[in-house]
Amino acid sequence: MSFPRKTHWTKNITPELDGKEVVLAGWVWDIRDIGNIKFILLRDREGLIQLTVKRGTVPEEVWSTASSLNREDAIVVKGIVKSSRIAKAGVEVFPSEVHIVARSKALPIDIWGSVETDLDTRLKYRSVDLKRPLNSLIFKAGSEVTRAVRDSLYNHGFIEVFTPKIIVTSTEGGAELFTVQYFERVAYLAQSPQLYKEELTASLERIFEIAPAYRAEKHNTNYHLNEFISVDIEEAFANYMDVMEILEDVIINVYDRVNKAFNDELNKYGIEIKNPRKPFRRITYDEALDMLGKRGLKIDWGEDVPKNGMEILSEEIGEPFFIIHFPTDLRAFYTKPLDSDPRISESFDLVIGGLEIASGSSRVHVKEQLTEALRKRGLNPESFENHLMIYDYGMPPHAGWGMGLYRLLMVLLRRDNIREVVLYPRDRFRLEP
Amino acid sequence: MSFPRKTHWTKNITPELDGKEVVLAGWVWDIRDIGNIKFILLRDREGLIQLTVKRGTVPEEVWSTASSLNREDAIVVKGIVKSSRIAKAGVEVFPSEVHIVARSKALPIDIWGSVETDLDTRLKYRSVDLKRPLNSLIFKAGSEVTRAVRDSLYNHGFIEVFTPKIIVTSTEGGAELFTVQYFERVAYLAQSPQLYKEELTASLERIFEIAPAYRAEKHNTNYHLNEFISVDIEEAFANYMDVMEILEDVIINVYDRVNKAFNDELNKYGIEIKNPRKPFRRITYDEALDMLGKRGLKIDWGEDVPKNGMEILSEEIGEPFFIIHFPTDLRAFYTKPLDSDPRISESFDLVIGGLEIASGSSRVHVKEQLTEALRKRGLNPESFENHLMIYDYGMPPHAGWGMGLYRLLMVLLRRDNIREVVLYPRDRFRLEP
Repeated sequence: MSFPRKTHWTKNITPELDGKEVVLAGWVWDIRDIGNIKFILLRDREGLIQLTVKRGTVPEEVWSTASSLNREDAIVVKGIVKSSRIAKAGVEVFPSEVHIVARSKALPIDIWGSVETDLDTRLKYRSVDLKRPLNSLIFKAGSEVTRAVRDSLYNHGFIEVFTPKIIVTSTEGGAELFTVQYFERVAYLAQSPQLYKEELTASLERIFEIAPAYRAEKHNTNYHLNEFISVDIEEAFANYMDVMEILEDVIINVYDRVNKAFNDELNKYGIEIKNPRKPFRRITYDEALDMLGKRGLKIDWGEDVPKNGMEILSEEIGEPFFIIHFPTDLRAFYTKPLDSDPRISESFDLVIGGLEIASGSSRVHVKEQLTEALRKRGLNPESFENHLMIYDYGMPPHAGWGMGLYRLLMVLLRRDNIREVVLYPRDRFRLEP
Repeated sequence: MSFPRKTHWTKNITPELDGKEVVLAGWVWDIRDIGNIKFILLRDREGLIQLTVKRGTVPEEVWSTASSLNREDAIVVKGIVKSSRIAKAGVEVFPSEVHIVARSKALPIDIWGSVETDLDTRLKYRSVDLKRPLNSLIFKAGSEVTRAVRDSLYNHGFIEVFTPKIIVTSTEGGAELFTVQYFERVAYLAQSPQLYKEELTASLERIFEIAPAYRAEKHNTNYHLNEFISVDIEEAFANYMDVMEILEDVIINVYDRVNKAFNDELNKYGIEIKNPRKPFRRITYDEALDMLGKRGLKIDWGEDVPKNGMEILSEEIGEPFFIIHFPTDLRAFYTKPLDSDPRISESFDLVIGGLEIASGSSRVHVKEQLTEALRKRGLNPESFENHLMIYDYGMPPHAGWGMGLYRLLMVLLRRDNIREVVLYPRDRFRLEP
């Protein structure tokens, strides 16, 4: 099969190209037939463009090919751009060649927006569902988000690393892990790169990782998945306040870049993204409990703030905001207590859309304190021997955070279900496609 | 513990900062003591700088702190920059504050280069080993490589995606997989994102992923690992020649960017990186067999080119080069045969340093052909039902490649063992640290 190479995305066909020959490729979105003229809407990842086929003015072969087209046939089209006062985009293309490179049967689900399909069915036919233009937008935005995150972190002197996902020890204790048969040994899928990234502060100082993470929890909510993408940073010679500022920069850059790149497209779907400003409001855990108490939600000191509590706080405070100074016992063993009051920790959560998007802290960097913290949580320091080793050799004070990429995307793009922003989600019951 | 925030990396302390106050942070690399003057070499991720402490001119507290320092103690230093004709970097820093933030015991392995340590021992103490300046360089270069790869791909209109690493079906058959217990079900760790990335060409058209991949093979060589980072791209409406050009651009950008960023540092270690030029030489599989036969290495048609064959070809041809048109039966089921001779496929390998760095092809995009190819390889099309579904709905012709990130780093930085370029490698017998 031979066909010319795509030269332009549909969105790049502008009236300025009037008279130019271009090659487009994509799928037949719609066909309007008015006798001797056919208007074919061609969709690619970047948008739609009108192809105008007039009988008599095009080669007979083009006319007959165009006449045989069905929705979602994949085609490659060579043609001349004409600016137009009638076509929606101010421009149309008059084809001189139309190559049908793949035929489409009638789709199992609607992608045109005339019929609502439930999410379960859409996920079952996910690779068809992804043809919906809103999905192109969601995953283009997703790519832009990771790019914006990385650029912010490079600017702050961070380098990207990859740490192993097959591990022998639970990172935090508590969370349930998936087991892997690693040759003769039983191993686990990492729930986070926590211990590795901390170790790396002793050499590479500022590092980040964007990689899959796994929790074998039986949650089945709109905002939990069993496989997710975790954005993790860790910085030497820094504390929780320092890395909160970096997180602010990351979030602001993400909103700004997505707005710049996709504002018009998002607006078509009624998705409005308001750029947040620095500094994000910070309230302490104690203040949060007070606020919630006044709104009738009583939480005992030492308990975590539940989802509905986060939602109430979001309303009261405006978003994004930080909750800081959680009770030390609520957080993982590596969390540093306040020097002035060890019941409380140098910790924070970032909340957007009533959801915990990121979570971080200053870390304990003194071996004896860390060993003690492990014991206090019923964990055996001997299982952490490989990790504890580096604390003997100039382990710097350090701090960091982990952010759920899909949660950020979910609140950014105002989706109700986290599965909307994941190509092929893995949840309690979903392992395919 | 309170100390000021690091303001500069050591490498950014230049004579132009003469007279300025700066805050540095890092580790004590070496101490020279000449009576009333101590020269302390401070190391951070970016290099070394001399701290000059003169008794009498510094506060007595700074003198006594400086006197107590040991190698690899982690310190934060506030001081004044002075340009200097004597100090190596043309600059030194006179401390006004020295904060010891963590003490170091004597290291279990040498990081100063006076004693050679075998790789096994270094990997055992990996987080200490990473303090070696060459390791900082390797992993900074690694980060720059992924950045360069991504930038090339963004420029070609690719977006970044994440596909699941827990899967139910073997992608290619053949390769051995690690099993995961996923709640009640047995699942596998993905050996590549192959099928997902192909499916995504039907909507997102040009996508890439940089993510972990897993092979449960019992290889234990210098260039195999059981967990590795795979760079994968897939493009709709393209063939193998098109994606080879993209691969050329990626490789050239990688070499160029690493050279620009680290040329001087690399030269110190005798690592020379020669920027390759386009187009890379292409030889067919048949030509490769001829060349090798003339050099006394006989390979039967249909057999793969072995490692020593690749090395001979590298010598003959110069690098990087492509081998194209492998026998169809040698490649995975989704590889497209040549229209003119179906025994041969539209496939390629990229070879650098006698190693297969990347591998790709045009793909079969016609459902019946794909089903037939599965059957021919003894695979059951019913197990691929979820994947085959999209081929009914305008599946475009497409092509792509997968590249081993660590292999690229290994040949780029001229390391003998792939473990040198991996923070915490996973191999046949290594699951910790």
